[in-house]
Amino acid sequence: MSKLRVNCFTISLDGYGAGLEQSEQNPLGVGGPDLHRWFRPTRTFKSMFGDPSGGTTGIDDDFAREGTENLGAWILGRNMFGPVRGPWPDEAWRGWWGANPPYHVPVFVLTHHARAPLEMEGGTTFYFVTGGIEQALERAREAAAGRDVRLGGGVQTIRQYLRAGLVDQMHLAFSPVLLGSGEHLLHDLDLRSLGYRVSAHVASEHATHVTFERAGV
Amino acid sequence: MSKLRVNCFTISLDGYGAGLEQSEQNPLGVGGPDLHRWFRPTRTFKSMFGDPSGGTTGIDDDFAREGTENLGAWILGRNMFGPVRGPWPDEAWRGWWGANPPYHVPVFVLTHHARAPLEMEGGTTFYFVTGGIEQALERAREAAAGRDVRLGGGVQTIRQYLRAGLVDQMHLAFSPVLLGSGEHLLHDLDLRSLGYRVSAHVASEHATHVTFERAGV
Repeated sequence: MSKLRVNCFTISLDGYGAGLEQSEQNPLGVGGPDLHRWFRPTRTFKSMFGDPSGGTTGIDDDFAREGTENLGAWILGRNMFGPVRGPWPDEAWRGWWGANPPYHVPVFVLTHHARAPLEMEGGTTFYFVTGGIEQALERAREAAAGRDVRLGGGVQTIRQYLRAGLVDQMHLAFSPVLLGSGEHLLHDLDLRSLGYRVSAHVASEHATHVTFERAGV
Repeated sequence: MSKLRVNCFTISLDGYGAGLEQSEQNPLGVGGPDLHRWFRPTRTFKSMFGDPSGGTTGIDDDFAREGTENLGAWILGRNMFGPVRGPWPDEAWRGWWGANPPYHVPVFVLTHHARAPLEMEGGTTFYFVTGGIEQALERAREAAAGRDVRLGGGVQTIRQYLRAGLVDQMHLAFSPVLLGSGEHLLHDLDLRSLGYRVSAHVASEHATHVTFERAGV
């Protein structure tokens, strides 16, 4: 059955998935880019952004690549899509990623403010869902047609889906940095009671990769 | 100069350093023993508890052993010493460790309730300090006579010393388990602003070991 998966979501050792003060210049917030040192050099990352020739292989790339496999749709929180808050002033903001975003499948963006679908190059279409996390998941599963749905983030979006017990598998990368403040992914979220268990952990030079599964999945 | 060090303090992936409901039967709280799977099989642990012949060597044992080196005194929060709360009803409680505790140096126990020093076998004497964390550190440094002082825990004690900027080095072991609830070591503690940085990280099969240093130390 189609799974809802989190892959490659990176948090600091003090538990933060993004720094404070996200802006157009700082999509990951202050200090956020430090989190992704394990990811950016990988062959998978480079390939996603148009450079299929280079990049590292190994543990980090293995996790990066698994995150791209068997995906039929994505779900993103609105802040993952952009820095605009409140009602859309116009249609000018088209995501962080330029004309050809690295999704290549339908992407469902959670928002309180309706907006027409936005078709991009390369197979990515952004759909704006105002009916909440379950509606977004239902639409994403339908679009995915049997393949998995990947939940991209951010922190608050993942927390909502975890709390509802809707995430089937989660891969987190613990990056060996301190952010000090920001959005905390796991605080006050009792994953153990929600049925999650650690299924594997392995470290590279740049991160500790941990996978979680929900019992009974 | 004599350093104040945290060594081998273990937290879960969701950030908890101890489970809830500590008791005489459950000194680490519910789920707490899972945290220490990396530590118990090591040669250092076995040697501390009277079995110098066995035990594993390797990354886990390296960190365990480093935690024992160059120590002249320890500081413990009261709950690390025992489950008794409030005024001491009598002198019956003599620690979790039996007649010959694995410290072999003076140990300063933070408490709000005065008690006479308690001399144990093997060089360990427990001193009960009612004047707060700075007084305990001053007395421990004096007793350590140039060697380092190790801060054993628990969570609230380490948080107090970190917040005061008094910890010079900290080694944490991140154990690949979820506790779900308990005492959170780092939440709302801005280590980055307090001057701490990650100095090294390395993983074994059973834990990811991370060392932190304070800038300028």
